[in-house]
Amino acid sequence: MMPTKRHESVGGWMSGGGRDSDVVISSRVRLARNVAGHRFVNRASAEERRELADKLAEAATHLEAAPHMEYFDLTALDDTDRALLVERHLISREHADAEGPRGVAVGADETISIMVNEEDHLRMQVLHGGFELDDAWALMSRIDDEMEQHVPYAFESEYGYLTACPTNIGTGLRVSAMLHLPALAMTRELQRVFNAAAKIDFIVRGLYGEGTQGHGDFFQLSNQKTLGRSEEEVLDNLRVVIPQIVRYERKVRDAMVKEHPRQVADRIGRAYGILCNARMISSEEALHLLSQVRLGVNLGVIHGMDLTAANRLFILTRPAHLQKIEGRDLESNERDMVRADFLRKSLAGARMSPSDSANE
Amino acid sequence: MMPTKRHESVGGWMSGGGRDSDVVISSRVRLARNVAGHRFVNRASAEERRELADKLAEAATHLEAAPHMEYFDLTALDDTDRALLVERHLISREHADAEGPRGVAVGADETISIMVNEEDHLRMQVLHGGFELDDAWALMSRIDDEMEQHVPYAFESEYGYLTACPTNIGTGLRVSAMLHLPALAMTRELQRVFNAAAKIDFIVRGLYGEGTQGHGDFFQLSNQKTLGRSEEEVLDNLRVVIPQIVRYERKVRDAMVKEHPRQVADRIGRAYGILCNARMISSEEALHLLSQVRLGVNLGVIHGMDLTAANRLFILTRPAHLQKIEGRDLESNERDMVRADFLRKSLAGARMSPSDSANE
Repeated sequence: MMPTKRHESVGGWMSGGGRDSDVVISSRVRLARNVAGHRFVNRASAEERRELADKLAEAATHLEAAPHMEYFDLTALDDTDRALLVERHLISREHADAEGPRGVAVGADETISIMVNEEDHLRMQVLHGGFELDDAWALMSRIDDEMEQHVPYAFESEYGYLTACPTNIGTGLRVSAMLHLPALAMTRELQRVFNAAAKIDFIVRGLYGEGTQGHGDFFQLSNQKTLGRSEEEVLDNLRVVIPQIVRYERKVRDAMVKEHPRQVADRIGRAYGILCNARMISSEEALHLLSQVRLGVNLGVIHGMDLTAANRLFILTRPAHLQKIEGRDLESNERDMVRADFLRKSLAGARMSPSDSANE
Repeated sequence: MMPTKRHESVGGWMSGGGRDSDVVISSRVRLARNVAGHRFVNRASAEERRELADKLAEAATHLEAAPHMEYFDLTALDDTDRALLVERHLISREHADAEGPRGVAVGADETISIMVNEEDHLRMQVLHGGFELDDAWALMSRIDDEMEQHVPYAFESEYGYLTACPTNIGTGLRVSAMLHLPALAMTRELQRVFNAAAKIDFIVRGLYGEGTQGHGDFFQLSNQKTLGRSEEEVLDNLRVVIPQIVRYERKVRDAMVKEHPRQVADRIGRAYGILCNARMISSEEALHLLSQVRLGVNLGVIHGMDLTAANRLFILTRPAHLQKIEGRDLESNERDMVRADFLRKSLAGARMSPSDSANE
């Protein structure tokens, strides 16, 4: 069973600000590892996976670098609780939907999560708010080193770390940043960001990873190559390109406010007005409107609310969270009602600036 | 010059409620008359029209049935003031845009207007709020009788009253009702209304008469035939068909609230939310959204505002009114800003019901 109240708050990575949090929602580092002497998850028997899960759960909850980890056996959770973990970015959708012995160890503030028997035996993640890649990587490295003392990793000197899918072989490292780019999206300048990302072999995805589209101006930038590139090279690339994108987004926000202050306030005002008064609202529409509200908070057009409060609503209005809040399963149209009611209540303290424009 | 403050209020026909004002915005009776022994306006010389204008202005401002009439020489008004009179339904757009000696006499509360040298020498109108056709017709008849004592009408026993255009010949009577039909429009049941109207030779037009479309769920129902049909026949037809439409609209409103209370509150809430927070809003969008707000007031979903206040906003947010309020000519995009600001201020006292649905 999930701790009952988990759905009422969000992870530490979202509550804290972090650097450049006006544009960078979060920084994430993930390592794929497999245990030497064991078959990959897709080849292992249920018994072998069960043994591995027990062993890795034990290890993951006894790391000095990651105190107070709690292990959830996914086979013991219901669909809603598993979906809740997906919405909190603690497990992948594939991990939620898979079968057989598997689980996840989660840190108290949800900065750390260690998936067991996902595609690989171990998928370890550190998630920080804002642009905090170095801190995330430092913590990830300590966890990785310590974990290796518990279980020997499958490693070959020619390739590096061995993984179930060739796309992760080598470093097993996936570094990503979740970006909020409303100004670039509005002015149709995103292609330049995608091009800059492609140049360093990074790709751009939506809010919930692979296969999802960029919704509500949120984009996940992550490296594609894990082979033939050192961890430091990958990190260095991000260290260069993320600040460029941040500057670019800010520049366009400033220009928009300067050149079209009315239009900016209008767009934000309409989003705020709908969120405060709608009685039914889909997940996708909420994302779009909340993106404008988050921008409004950043530009000072919306008062009585901070970026953290705006961030929280992205997570808390997802389907599984709404069902936990409501305490029961909800049909899609019921969720739209509960979502609207929750948003109205949540935005009760926020208010539009009385100014007519965004620059006053 | 127009009395300076006219643009800040609306006519008595709109301030008062009148019967069935949840559905019937206003009832209007109009008579077309020409003075015997004079050529029609389109044939008369400028001098003849000038003489007629003086004579008719004098008559129109000395009627016992219509005290305190004020005469405006349209050639002495600027474009904005003429447009203001159009927006207040006191003159036709054609009368505003025409050339040469012409004018309008207007009663203190704007219930009565008498256009001079429009298409006919006289176009006399009585406008009442709600479904008040009998009162409007009684007043119109008194004015007509009294006017005939001042000027002899062009009349032939075979045809009746002679008019410049054959479509008005006979009674010269045009009776119309302005209807607010959001529920019928939403449920696409309007065709049945149009069919019912066509059966009694009535036609349906938009808010500003001929050539305009039904916008924001407002429809003007008026008789087509003036020949071969007595005044009483035409009035009787409306006396029958309007209450039918009113009952039908109410029935559909009730059904909507009963069957889809959330959707109704959602639609009204969104309209209200946008009106209260937008920073730019077009005339057409305002009409659509205000239609929902008016429905919301009627259904008790919006508090702190009455139907009269909702009605006022339809007139006061029209282009000429906004320019008078602002005290200067405005480009279209400037008007959109002023309109949004005016609507925000005007709706400050209104609020959505805290209920989630329309039936609670």
